[in-house]
Amino acid sequence: MKLDLALIPPLLGVLGLVVAFILYGLVMKYDEGNEKVAKIGGAIHRGAMVFMNREYKMLLMFNIVLIIPLYVALGTETAISFAAGTLCSGIAGYLGMFAATKANVRTTTAAHEDGAGAALTVAFFGGSIMGMCVAALGLLGLGLLYYFFGAEHAEAVHGFGMGASTVALFSRVGGGIFTKSADVGADLVGKLEAGIPEDDPRNPGVIADNVGDNVGDVAGMGSDIFESYCGATIATVALAATMGVANQADLMSLPLLLSSAGLICSILGIILVKMMSNSSPEKALRTGTIGAAVIFIVAAYFVLQYFGIDIGKFYAIVCGAVGGVIIGLVTEYYTASTPVRRIAESGKTGSATVMITGLAVGMQSVVLPILTICGIIYISTQSAGLYGVGLAAIAMLATVGITMAIDAYGPVADNAGGIAEMAGLGKETRDITDSLDELGNTTAAIGKGFAIGAAALAALSIIAAFTATVSANIPGFSLSLDKPEVLIGLFIGGTIPFLIASITMTAVGDAAMEMIVEIRRQFKDIPGLLEGKADPDTEKCVDIATTAALKKMIIPGVIAVTVPVIVGLGLGAESLGGMLGGALLGCVLMALMMANAGGAWDNAKKYIEKGNLGGKGSDTHAAAVVGDTVGDPFKDTSGPSMNILINVMAIVSLVIAPLLS
Amino acid sequence: MKLDLALIPPLLGVLGLVVAFILYGLVMKYDEGNEKVAKIGGAIHRGAMVFMNREYKMLLMFNIVLIIPLYVALGTETAISFAAGTLCSGIAGYLGMFAATKANVRTTTAAHEDGAGAALTVAFFGGSIMGMCVAALGLLGLGLLYYFFGAEHAEAVHGFGMGASTVALFSRVGGGIFTKSADVGADLVGKLEAGIPEDDPRNPGVIADNVGDNVGDVAGMGSDIFESYCGATIATVALAATMGVANQADLMSLPLLLSSAGLICSILGIILVKMMSNSSPEKALRTGTIGAAVIFIVAAYFVLQYFGIDIGKFYAIVCGAVGGVIIGLVTEYYTASTPVRRIAESGKTGSATVMITGLAVGMQSVVLPILTICGIIYISTQSAGLYGVGLAAIAMLATVGITMAIDAYGPVADNAGGIAEMAGLGKETRDITDSLDELGNTTAAIGKGFAIGAAALAALSIIAAFTATVSANIPGFSLSLDKPEVLIGLFIGGTIPFLIASITMTAVGDAAMEMIVEIRRQFKDIPGLLEGKADPDTEKCVDIATTAALKKMIIPGVIAVTVPVIVGLGLGAESLGGMLGGALLGCVLMALMMANAGGAWDNAKKYIEKGNLGGKGSDTHAAAVVGDTVGDPFKDTSGPSMNILINVMAIVSLVIAPLLS
Repeated sequence: MKLDLALIPPLLGVLGLVVAFILYGLVMKYDEGNEKVAKIGGAIHRGAMVFMNREYKMLLMFNIVLIIPLYVALGTETAISFAAGTLCSGIAGYLGMFAATKANVRTTTAAHEDGAGAALTVAFFGGSIMGMCVAALGLLGLGLLYYFFGAEHAEAVHGFGMGASTVALFSRVGGGIFTKSADVGADLVGKLEAGIPEDDPRNPGVIADNVGDNVGDVAGMGSDIFESYCGATIATVALAATMGVANQADLMSLPLLLSSAGLICSILGIILVKMMSNSSPEKALRTGTIGAAVIFIVAAYFVLQYFGIDIGKFYAIVCGAVGGVIIGLVTEYYTASTPVRRIAESGKTGSATVMITGLAVGMQSVVLPILTICGIIYISTQSAGLYGVGLAAIAMLATVGITMAIDAYGPVADNAGGIAEMAGLGKETRDITDSLDELGNTTAAIGKGFAIGAAALAALSIIAAFTATVSANIPGFSLSLDKPEVLIGLFIGGTIPFLIASITMTAVGDAAMEMIVEIRRQFKDIPGLLEGKADPDTEKCVDIATTAALKKMIIPGVIAVTVPVIVGLGLGAESLGGMLGGALLGCVLMALMMANAGGAWDNAKKYIEKGNLGGKGSDTHAAAVVGDTVGDPFKDTSGPSMNILINVMAIVSLVIAPLLS
Repeated sequence: MKLDLALIPPLLGVLGLVVAFILYGLVMKYDEGNEKVAKIGGAIHRGAMVFMNREYKMLLMFNIVLIIPLYVALGTETAISFAAGTLCSGIAGYLGMFAATKANVRTTTAAHEDGAGAALTVAFFGGSIMGMCVAALGLLGLGLLYYFFGAEHAEAVHGFGMGASTVALFSRVGGGIFTKSADVGADLVGKLEAGIPEDDPRNPGVIADNVGDNVGDVAGMGSDIFESYCGATIATVALAATMGVANQADLMSLPLLLSSAGLICSILGIILVKMMSNSSPEKALRTGTIGAAVIFIVAAYFVLQYFGIDIGKFYAIVCGAVGGVIIGLVTEYYTASTPVRRIAESGKTGSATVMITGLAVGMQSVVLPILTICGIIYISTQSAGLYGVGLAAIAMLATVGITMAIDAYGPVADNAGGIAEMAGLGKETRDITDSLDELGNTTAAIGKGFAIGAAALAALSIIAAFTATVSANIPGFSLSLDKPEVLIGLFIGGTIPFLIASITMTAVGDAAMEMIVEIRRQFKDIPGLLEGKADPDTEKCVDIATTAALKKMIIPGVIAVTVPVIVGLGLGAESLGGMLGGALLGCVLMALMMANAGGAWDNAKKYIEKGNLGGKGSDTHAAAVVGDTVGDPFKDTSGPSMNILINVMAIVSLVIAPLLS
């Protein structure tokens, strides 16, 4: 009987992959469009694949370097888990992005030929493939590992989380640097110097910009969510393993079974969206996500009933699922409502006031999400102990199939708009893609808030698992804040997000400079380019962004992986625990601040571009553009890096926990 | 014999006041200058006094509201201490600022008539009065309270720290809002719209701008340092009180005796500066500060020898004194060296890159100071336990008489330059005041770094004292990070600095808008103003800045005082302890980031103004001005508020500790 249950997660993983392939088939049934559209789409697809291939080569080397000490220090099982984690995360990102870069052209053509409903369907299915791959490969990988390793080697599965995290680190940070260097570079030269509109095909950087949307916002976000998803599961299983209660085995298998139920709920949610594709897109997407969450809560109740697990665990699940929605709504408020108009208004007195107001909005926006997280911690621990925090994280992430779908939908729609512009498909098509894109911005902002909340809870569960593991090994272990060791760790941990944010922001600036130099060179050296008579060398720009991104992500990657090892082995387990606490706090604060300030600046600019406060071309608009440019690395590079950073550090700590004394 | 020793601190406090009065006499012996200079100086002096009077009235009401619950809950002694704390801090700020606004005109005239050496002497003496008042009133107030209350009511003296902290909160936050709203408002309309130079007498906001330098940078900084100074002493005494060792009485009197020795060292330092006033000003100031610190270390050694206290305590003292210098030097690097040039360079691609680079510099700049603080914590606790952290804080602050003097020297020199410009005293005078002012910028930056380090250590000692006090009352009390209560507190604490930074930055923006409206009105309504034929209504601008500052500092003040009470009584002592940890970490990170980014932006602008990268009027300069404008509230309002914020919350927690269960 138990054996059957343990097979459910991998089997549902297979089901998820089948659904992903069906969705892919549905997307590919749509027409790619005319030659020009297909050519542009092909360039974006090739550029994205070039980046992925080079990134994965580098990741392979990095992981080979990592796997050797893992194998030596922790044994074969951990090394296998680590390899499986990198593989699953890598495949999920690859498939999802492959599909997204096929869906973008087809969305453009659907908007052009079949109207808004069809365009929404293609874009959403394109995103759903990523969502399904994330959920399915997580279940498949983790399910098989727990099945084969059993309770005896359950600790080895931590390596899976570490593998997923290192891939995420590279995808998110590298993708983030790529996308923003291309975006900022293309915009600064194209819009400001050459005076041509955004997404103009004459701009050599514009393909790189569109590639960036895919490698940063699809593949990067996918690997981010994937590692939270796996991290939360692993941590909750690990917490159950230290509990020593009668139904421990049930509590250990519960996380994956909940995620399995979540996968089915996600599929139902996707069907719901499709059924509503002819009503307003906003309503369709919202019904799908909230519908899936509601079904999941009901399903979770029956799963718990089946095992005869107490109702306290159910409360933890409910508060996790509801908390995710609340954080998303708060994010929506700060990036779409009064604060955005206040930033736009402040543009009347210039870019300095736009900066001050935007930073103030970002800083203020951390309060409610963090109080929500505090509420989740309170309710879940009151009703189910630290294990409850893990359950809350799992509940927040269980319907990842659809939440990730909605995240990935954004860049697909954004790309579709860019392709429509580049191919000159006319105002009507552009209007449809614009409305899809606008919605995508809001869903992306909500998705970011959700990703931060999930990452925070996942990290928290991993830290709790770390503490539980170390406590079992080290007598008298305590993370009390009045111990100097813990305090020193706390301070060191707090500086790391600031350091990584600084490095990644500088990286974007430097990479954008290289891009600017190249685009300027092409405008000067390629005769007839500005007149539209010659083609730009777009591949050169993709190459520059790729090289810069891969080069610049090494240092953050090395810091994230080595600092926990240095602190843990050098200063001891208590300092390492303090460090994780400080880093968690700092990462969550910075992630929220940067994501929300960036989103608010972006939308303030868009608000003005809709004709408010003087519209495009006014001084107020110019001031808002400065805010948006600063917001770009905030929301798409440095901010999202924080999610991974804390999870990488937490999972590395958990993996090395057996080595600490 | 013991009785004699206990009288030393108050007696030295009296000595310090006598020295302050002698310095005041020396300053007043210099000529006030011609009628025009005297008139401008008078307007600044009156404006500053108007602000102080109104601020103190409001503070009086606020404190009456606070003293009643203190009296009811904690008794007469605490209420008396609280009143004494507000009084001493208030008097120190008042006297120091009174003197500074007398010294500024005299510095101008000395520069005009007697040359650089005399100008340095007057400006430095002007600042020294503030330094002496801070050290003297701290020793006098605390010395008398400990003398009369004795060991029995030593806990009541915590009220003194709380009184000093509430004054500091109002002075620093209110002063910070005043100074930057006047500065930003005057600059935006004057320089950008009316096209008149900085400090032009036709600008109605320019007197308010100069008043702001005094109320923000002299009185605000003074009260900030005063509360760190008193907080560190109180906390160290409280830690000694919980130690239960044989020489406990000695350890309890050590803090004030070290500070007493520090006062004498400061006087010696001031004499050193005066003796060197004809060599380079930079060398003179540096010799004075470092000289005083070195003498203090030697003196501390003999004090410890006299009591027969172990050498471990001496190591703690040395690492505190040296750590302060290191933090200052790191601050100097980030606000005066390569990073500044990098920001200036980034201005070539516009204001957005100036913002990104500046923020990246600010974020990176937190790392070394925090590692230094970690080093201090490590060495001092290893050699003398948590009591050692208190000793380190006291050592860092012991020579406050001269470090504060050098801080306050900056705004006096800055004012002197403004007065010279307004009175049209010619290039030669302006060159002298400019060179003094430039040095003042560097010393101010170093002073800020030092203030942050000192505030962090002071807060840390207070938190340690809080933990020790609560641990004695509550069985099983623990601040372990794996307790949900502590974790929730940690998260709540981390959001508070972000919230306060957001509120204060918004306050500056709003107040500056009111100022802009008024200055525009005057340029429009007062005939002949722009032609220099009519006088502006400068008092109206002072009034607007005063009203705005007083109104806007209420909310941050209320948050800082009430949140610890709410968390402590609502969620319990463990959550409160966690909250202090999170707030400490967040405040130190934000304080360093904002102070250093702001200082670096300011100096990047000045670097360009010296003729680099196109000089004044170039596009690069315009981009750098945006950075400087954002940096203004960063470094002079929100950043410095962080120091107070954490100390207010810590001391409120310590005061209410007996009420927690």
